Amino acid sequence: MQNKILKFDNAAIVASASVVGKWEKDGPLGEYFDLHDNTDKFGKNTWELAESEMQRLAFNIAMAKLSVSEQAIDALFAGDLLNQCVSSSYGLLDFDIPYFGLYGACSTAAESLMLASATVSAGYFKTAAAVTSSHYCSAERQYRSPVEYGAQRSPTAQWTVTGAGAFMVSGEGKIRITEGLPGIVVEKGISDASNMGAAMAPAAADTLKRYFQISGSSPSDFDLIVTGDLGIEGGSILCELLLSEGIDIRQQYNDCGAMIYDVKRQDKHAGGSGCGCSAVVMASYICPMLERGELKNVLFMGTGAMMSPSSIQQGQAIPAVAHLIRLSSQKN
Amino acid sequence: MQNKILKFDNAAIVASASVVGKWEKDGPLGEYFDLHDNTDKFGKNTWELAESEMQRLAFNIAMAKLSVSEQAIDALFAGDLLNQCVSSSYGLLDFDIPYFGLYGACSTAAESLMLASATVSAGYFKTAAAVTSSHYCSAERQYRSPVEYGAQRSPTAQWTVTGAGAFMVSGEGKIRITEGLPGIVVEKGISDASNMGAAMAPAAADTLKRYFQISGSSPSDFDLIVTGDLGIEGGSILCELLLSEGIDIRQQYNDCGAMIYDVKRQDKHAGGSGCGCSAVVMASYICPMLERGELKNVLFMGTGAMMSPSSIQQGQAIPAVAHLIRLSSQKN
Repeated sequence: MQNKILKFDNAAIVASASVVGKWEKDGPLGEYFDLHDNTDKFGKNTWELAESEMQRLAFNIAMAKLSVSEQAIDALFAGDLLNQCVSSSYGLLDFDIPYFGLYGACSTAAESLMLASATVSAGYFKTAAAVTSSHYCSAERQYRSPVEYGAQRSPTAQWTVTGAGAFMVSGEGKIRITEGLPGIVVEKGISDASNMGAAMAPAAADTLKRYFQISGSSPSDFDLIVTGDLGIEGGSILCELLLSEGIDIRQQYNDCGAMIYDVKRQDKHAGGSGCGCSAVVMASYICPMLERGELKNVLFMGTGAMMSPSSIQQGQAIPAVAHLIRLSSQKN
Repeated sequence: MQNKILKFDNAAIVASASVVGKWEKDGPLGEYFDLHDNTDKFGKNTWELAESEMQRLAFNIAMAKLSVSEQAIDALFAGDLLNQCVSSSYGLLDFDIPYFGLYGACSTAAESLMLASATVSAGYFKTAAAVTSSHYCSAERQYRSPVEYGAQRSPTAQWTVTGAGAFMVSGEGKIRITEGLPGIVVEKGISDASNMGAAMAPAAADTLKRYFQISGSSPSDFDLIVTGDLGIEGGSILCELLLSEGIDIRQQYNDCGAMIYDVKRQDKHAGGSGCGCSAVVMASYICPMLERGELKNVLFMGTGAMMSPSSIQQGQAIPAVAHLIRLSSQKN
C-alpha cells in the first residue's frame, strides 16, 4: 500500500503569486515574478521578518488575483526553512484562517500543494492556500554563517532563493492537480552539507521511479518533469540514477534551481535552492504556462534535505524526501 | 467558511504507544507508559538521537500492538520541536513509508492526528500513523540553555516532556475520531518565553469557543476536555478566558501537562509541555480509557507556541495555535 498514488478528482490551482529578491529579479525568469524588492528587506529590519513579509505579500497578491478576501480561504498549508518555521507563523498571522504548519525542508511547496489538493478534493475545504518561502540571508546565518562573514562557497553549493510563493487550490480550474505521490525519506550516506543536490537526488529518483512503476506512464507522457531544487549538480545525478534503471528523463527534465539563475553570470554555483525556489518558479513561470496550455502534463517534485546544522555537526548523514504532484492543463 | 468543522466518517485510533523518560515514569501516569529509560538516552550518545530513537520505538510498539509490519502503514504524519524536525526525519528513516513532515510546535500531536484522520477518512490511505516527540535535554539546549548550565527556572516555566507517542489511524475502531477543527494562529502580546501557557491559552480559547459556537454543543456534552500542554498556569487562564465569554469548562477540563507530573513532589513548576506531552498522555492514558468505554466523548486540543528563540530575541511576541479533535468511544 505504500505505493499508492493519491487521486484528486477536484483540485486545481486557481491563482498563484510570487515575491522575490534582487538576484531572482535579475535572473532569467525575472520578468515573471509579481513583486520584488532590490534590498531584499521588504521594509523590515531583520531578515527573518523580511521573509515573513514576503509570505504575507505573496498570499495577499494571490487573494487579489482571485478577487477574494481572507474569508474565502478555508485553510493555510504553510512552511519554510527557518527554525520553528517562524516565517510562516509570523508571516500569515494577520489572517484569520485555520493554519496547518508543515516542515518538509525544500519539499514543502510540493507537500503543501499535495495536502491542499487532498483536503480540497475530499471536500473538507472549498479553497485552501499553500504558502512557502525562503530567504538567502536568513538561511545563510541559520544554516551556515552570516553573509557578512563572507564565507567561501564550494562549487556544489546552492544559493538559497529569496522568495515566497502562494497558491490557491480549489475544485475547478485550468491548472488541475490530478495526482500526488508522497515521498519516502531516504538517506544514501551523503553528509556534505555543501552538496544538497547529491543528498536529495536519490530521494527524487526513488519517488519518480515509483511513480512510473505504479502509474504505468513513462517520461514521454509529460512535457516537463521538474524538480524543486536539485540544482545543476543534483539534477545531473538524478538523470544518471534513473538512466541506470533504464529510465531516460533527459528530454523532459528541468530543475527550478537550475532555471532561476544564470549561474555563470550571477555566480550562483550549482543553482538555486530553498522552499522559495520551487514555489516562485512554479507560481510565476510554470503554472502560467499550464494555464495558457503551453504545457499540458507536468510532473513536479519538491525535494527536501531533512537534516539540521546540529545533525550534521553530530556526524549524521543527510536524509531527503521528494514529494510528487501531477499537473494537467485544462486549456482547450 | 473558516468556521467549518471537519467531519470524519471513517477514522479511528486502532493502536497507540508511548515511550518516556525517567521523570514521566516517576510521575502519576508512570504505570501506563509502554516503555521507559531511566537514563533518558535510549542507548544513544546525543540527546537528539535519543529523541529520534524514542519515535522509532514508539512507532514499532504501535505496529506490534496492531500485529502489522511497516507494509501495512500507508503514511506517516510526524513532527517534533527540534530545528528542522530532525527527531522525526531521523527517527522514522528506517521505515519505507511515505512521510509528511509537520510543524505545529506542541500542537503537532493533534495536527498529525487530524491530518491522518482526514486522509484516512477520505480514502487516500487505509492506515496512517501520527508520531510526535519531545525530549527535555534536546529542547533545553535548543530553546534555552544546556541543562548542564543549571539555569534557574521561573515559576511559570514548564518542563518539556521526554516522550514520544505513536497513533495508528484506520477506518474502523473503538476510539473514533469524528471531528476536527483546525486552529487559527493568534498572538495576544505575550512575549515571555518562560510563560508558554499564557501565550497558548488564547489560542485554545479561540478554538474551543469556535467549536462550541459552530457545533452547538456545550461543555457538558463531554466527559473530558483536555488540552495538550497549557500546564497549570495556562490551563487556569484558559478557564478564565472562557468564563468571561460565558463558557464554563471547569468540570470537564484537564491538561496533559498538568497530569503528567506531580509538580510539587517532582519540582516541575507549571507542569509538562512539548509535542511529547500530549502524545504520551493521549496514547497511554486517555485513549485506553476511551477504548474501555470509561470515557465516552472527549475533546482534545493540541496547543502550540509558534515562536523561535530568534523571534523572541528579536523582540517578537509569541503566536500560538490550537488544533481540536473530537474522540468518541465505540465501546458498548
